[in-house]
Amino acid sequence: MLTNSERSLIRRPRFVLMAFVIDMSKSQRVFMRPIDVRSVRLEDDFWAPRLRTLWEVTLPSQLEIFEKTGRIENFRRAAGKASGHFQGLIFNDSDVYKWLEAVAYSYAYSGRHELMGMASSVIDEVVAAQDADGYLDTYFTGERKKDRWKNERDNHELYCAGHLIQAGIATKRAMGDTKLFNASRRFADLICDLFGPAKEKTVPGHPVTEMALVELYRETGEKRYLDQAQLFIDLRGRGIIGGSPYQLDHVPIRDMKEITGHAVRALYLMSGVADVYAETGDASLLSALSRLWEDLQKKTYVTGGVGSRYEWESIGEAYELPNARAYAETCAAIANVMWNHRMLLITGDEKYADAMELALYNGALSGISLDGLSYFYVNPLADRGKSRRQQWFDCACCPTNIIRLLAYLPSLFYGVSDRGIYVNLYGKSSSTISHAGRTVKVRQETDYPWDGRIRIEVDAQEPVSLHLRIPGWARSARISAEGKSLEGVPGTYAEIEVKDEAELDLPMPVEKLIANPRVLDDRGSVALKRGPLVYCVEHAGNDFDPWDLAISASDEFTAEDGVLKSMRIKVVRGNGAALRTAQWTYQRKEAGDVQRVPVNFTAVPYYAWANREPGPMIVWLLAR
Amino acid sequence: MLTNSERSLIRRPRFVLMAFVIDMSKSQRVFMRPIDVRSVRLEDDFWAPRLRTLWEVTLPSQLEIFEKTGRIENFRRAAGKASGHFQGLIFNDSDVYKWLEAVAYSYAYSGRHELMGMASSVIDEVVAAQDADGYLDTYFTGERKKDRWKNERDNHELYCAGHLIQAGIATKRAMGDTKLFNASRRFADLICDLFGPAKEKTVPGHPVTEMALVELYRETGEKRYLDQAQLFIDLRGRGIIGGSPYQLDHVPIRDMKEITGHAVRALYLMSGVADVYAETGDASLLSALSRLWEDLQKKTYVTGGVGSRYEWESIGEAYELPNARAYAETCAAIANVMWNHRMLLITGDEKYADAMELALYNGALSGISLDGLSYFYVNPLADRGKSRRQQWFDCACCPTNIIRLLAYLPSLFYGVSDRGIYVNLYGKSSSTISHAGRTVKVRQETDYPWDGRIRIEVDAQEPVSLHLRIPGWARSARISAEGKSLEGVPGTYAEIEVKDEAELDLPMPVEKLIANPRVLDDRGSVALKRGPLVYCVEHAGNDFDPWDLAISASDEFTAEDGVLKSMRIKVVRGNGAALRTAQWTYQRKEAGDVQRVPVNFTAVPYYAWANREPGPMIVWLLAR
Repeated sequence: MLTNSERSLIRRPRFVLMAFVIDMSKSQRVFMRPIDVRSVRLEDDFWAPRLRTLWEVTLPSQLEIFEKTGRIENFRRAAGKASGHFQGLIFNDSDVYKWLEAVAYSYAYSGRHELMGMASSVIDEVVAAQDADGYLDTYFTGERKKDRWKNERDNHELYCAGHLIQAGIATKRAMGDTKLFNASRRFADLICDLFGPAKEKTVPGHPVTEMALVELYRETGEKRYLDQAQLFIDLRGRGIIGGSPYQLDHVPIRDMKEITGHAVRALYLMSGVADVYAETGDASLLSALSRLWEDLQKKTYVTGGVGSRYEWESIGEAYELPNARAYAETCAAIANVMWNHRMLLITGDEKYADAMELALYNGALSGISLDGLSYFYVNPLADRGKSRRQQWFDCACCPTNIIRLLAYLPSLFYGVSDRGIYVNLYGKSSSTISHAGRTVKVRQETDYPWDGRIRIEVDAQEPVSLHLRIPGWARSARISAEGKSLEGVPGTYAEIEVKDEAELDLPMPVEKLIANPRVLDDRGSVALKRGPLVYCVEHAGNDFDPWDLAISASDEFTAEDGVLKSMRIKVVRGNGAALRTAQWTYQRKEAGDVQRVPVNFTAVPYYAWANREPGPMIVWLLAR
Repeated sequence: MLTNSERSLIRRPRFVLMAFVIDMSKSQRVFMRPIDVRSVRLEDDFWAPRLRTLWEVTLPSQLEIFEKTGRIENFRRAAGKASGHFQGLIFNDSDVYKWLEAVAYSYAYSGRHELMGMASSVIDEVVAAQDADGYLDTYFTGERKKDRWKNERDNHELYCAGHLIQAGIATKRAMGDTKLFNASRRFADLICDLFGPAKEKTVPGHPVTEMALVELYRETGEKRYLDQAQLFIDLRGRGIIGGSPYQLDHVPIRDMKEITGHAVRALYLMSGVADVYAETGDASLLSALSRLWEDLQKKTYVTGGVGSRYEWESIGEAYELPNARAYAETCAAIANVMWNHRMLLITGDEKYADAMELALYNGALSGISLDGLSYFYVNPLADRGKSRRQQWFDCACCPTNIIRLLAYLPSLFYGVSDRGIYVNLYGKSSSTISHAGRTVKVRQETDYPWDGRIRIEVDAQEPVSLHLRIPGWARSARISAEGKSLEGVPGTYAEIEVKDEAELDLPMPVEKLIANPRVLDDRGSVALKRGPLVYCVEHAGNDFDPWDLAISASDEFTAEDGVLKSMRIKVVRGNGAALRTAQWTYQRKEAGDVQRVPVNFTAVPYYAWANREPGPMIVWLLAR
């Protein structure tokens, strides 16, 4: 909750009219249009404190790390302002761009001028490093200038360009600063000149460029950027970048039957394809998107995490979901949010909101510590105590991705269409939504995600058509509005006309999930979930090894108020048995009586794990 | 079973007195000494037909592939008899050496002259490729001569040398041909000259050299070979080959707490350390071996397979044993047999015989098809039907390793010491064992591994002290000898004095194994095992998907006679339920009633899987 003095600190920059992350206001093939990041003001104690930590702790700390690790110095060096060698990994420029994007949306949302200050000086360093022809990549400068555009499969030039374009758009829309935007557009023009139709054929080795170019088209109205994004998508499957499933270059996208390869590449690519579809309406792309999305559900963890293999950070076979050896990169869960958000906007199908919410609250959010200073790259679903969030990584894609997601999170809450306002996410908040030529104030009064009761207050001249998301995880949903009461159908949007207020009640019992037996890794196990939150059992807070815990799937478990690192949460409590594993000589024995000790257990939300002392953790509990 | 005409074909070469694989006749620190491969004549219908297939089908077919793939041509080219480039992988010479070793022991055992003929012409090609200074590696010839000994971590020169030495010893002992032996010894001398004490320090990147040099010491009595092997072992952990756990070079062997790294490298190295211990009695080595062996048991599959990670073909964490994604390389299971055989010889501890038998009958034997013409490199414990044995691999270490194991398999059956004769493995056979200066004929009449009753007939001048292995898997063991009856203790050797005959009865119920809950991958599951054989359920022979099968751990299952590809086997039959998985939308649902269909299932021995039509297979069955 914000104090009054904090509230007074937060002003919205007056000159910015809109700060869209995805601006689909002119897109033809979308079911609902996204709102801008400034429309929603979160007032809850789940997200709002995380955003405050983002602005006050995380963003400044990352800039400090950028300086320490040479990421800013790389730009100075490329601009001729510093000497020495390029430092770090080939795609390190992208971290700076992603940070700028996060700072921009954070500024638009919070109005904190120090964010504007931080961004401006970095933007100056970036644009000074641009070549006369528009090229901008600090790795390929000086003696490496001759290596430009030599190996798009591996060299990440188009990847860095994509993030530059996204940062340019963000700083223009959210800060009103066109310096970076103009620079990024010049680079985009160079790319279109070099790799446009009838030019040299290439494909981004690591997608993101596709999304960025479509957004640049949306920002400028210039069709060459959309055409270039479409071309990058159409050229896949011709072996231009090696022809491997890892690169999603083995078959054309329209012919892909399964989603494969590097998880982040795959889901960024799908997001870009969705963006192209939104603008072109090419049905063959939507058909591929739907098919590949269905396939991905067989390859998605209960946390919304994706990418089960350490080898090549890749998506595995259907139902291949190892727990302790889960890779489930934070970036892949974030990409899962991105893709599902776009699918939701395009189709209006509630299932995409479910998948977006799941990844957001679990597999993505686990990527950052409660104090905003350390990060998971890999997100296992079971661990012996060795996995801990790190303050940084040489390959820092995840830390600089989670800040973007948090920064534009408010924009995910609603969508609008001619049919009305779509409530996609729940959380205590006050929003001002432009819709059908008028402005509607929508307030959510709720303790979501800890409680499923949501009161929605509307302040509008005439009744507003609200489409309330009834999550697929709900067993039932009671809606009361304007003196009437109706049952919502889980997995759909419930449409109601609201003049003043409506109430939605989503009961949140502790659910016990079991896995399809095809998921070998989850056999004979139960996962606990409450509302959108997946729970895990940590050694911290329990006096037994959670890997030895067996619970009965027929038992009922209760949610109780708790506190974790001074954050209010709900814990799940129940009875179980701790198996005595000492009796196993090695790892197997004849079936028969196994000694058990009755125990009470406490489970905490998965996103919050590894914020206390190290120890074993597990999501899928042995069912006895 | 051999027909009489086949029996007449099999003669033992008269001039070969002994064909030891491991000659510990002079080793000081061994509990029991190995016997030679000619001592045992298998007469069963489990192993004897596999050996016949080896001689008649597998060995000739591999030679044909060697010619097709340039493996022999590489030697001709190095000898100046052919032109062109080196073909294949850097360590391809080793395949030829391993094949020669297999042919040599097969010849000694079978007396089939065509084997001698095949070997002789290949030996001529090999020795002609040797340089004047003793160097012999066809990759590093011509323009690559300058690259010799530049990168022992990766270049496999000492690895190929090790296999050459083993082949040289084998052809000398088993065929009486010293041509290859002399060549290999010259190469060994060169290695000792280059890398001996006070010379340039190196360590074999891929172990095997250590075992080979100790055996060369045993063959020649020349201590420099033993010293060189010891030096290679002592130099580990100093970073000479990179210092990584993958290479087992991160700490000195005596300080290793866990067995890590590339599974085959690790277990070959341990076998070499055991060999050095057997000759030197260095207690610090035995202590390391024991400690690392204990650790390996937490990393070993129920099949005796080892090496759970695709990444780097490596051993994973304790209890990390994925089933569908098991790597469990055939070579690693074979290395597991090799290491355990040596540990058994050194210590006499029955637990090593258990581990050896387990890997032999399951994880190693699964590596070759019943027809002897195709091979598994990777041995999953669950599969959707895609894994099939292949006729060859570019990296052909497994096909050329399984032939060695089969060729010298008879030598694993017994050990001898001053205390008597140790019966390590069971199978219908007639053996002539030299022991304490006399020759004892031992006959096993049994249907092992299908039945646990073994009648042992002894033909000796005076009573023989027999040490009968009572396997750790046995629940009980009744021994009758000379009118007396006693209970054997599982996990020990039972000593009895036998003049004429003894009987051992090992009941073989179908055991239901459960896993330590720390093995996440096997939770809530049951594996079926009978005697030394692990069973699996294949789709072939069942009318449901075995991944959907749930069985009750309290049910009893029966073993019945069956036939698979005209091989007599015992199948395991029982009742279970096939879960209806269609009801899962994706891969998870709320716990509750799951629809089941009662089914009868048939399980087959794991070694025999994938010999029928492709389809899903699983070892760890879901327990309901």
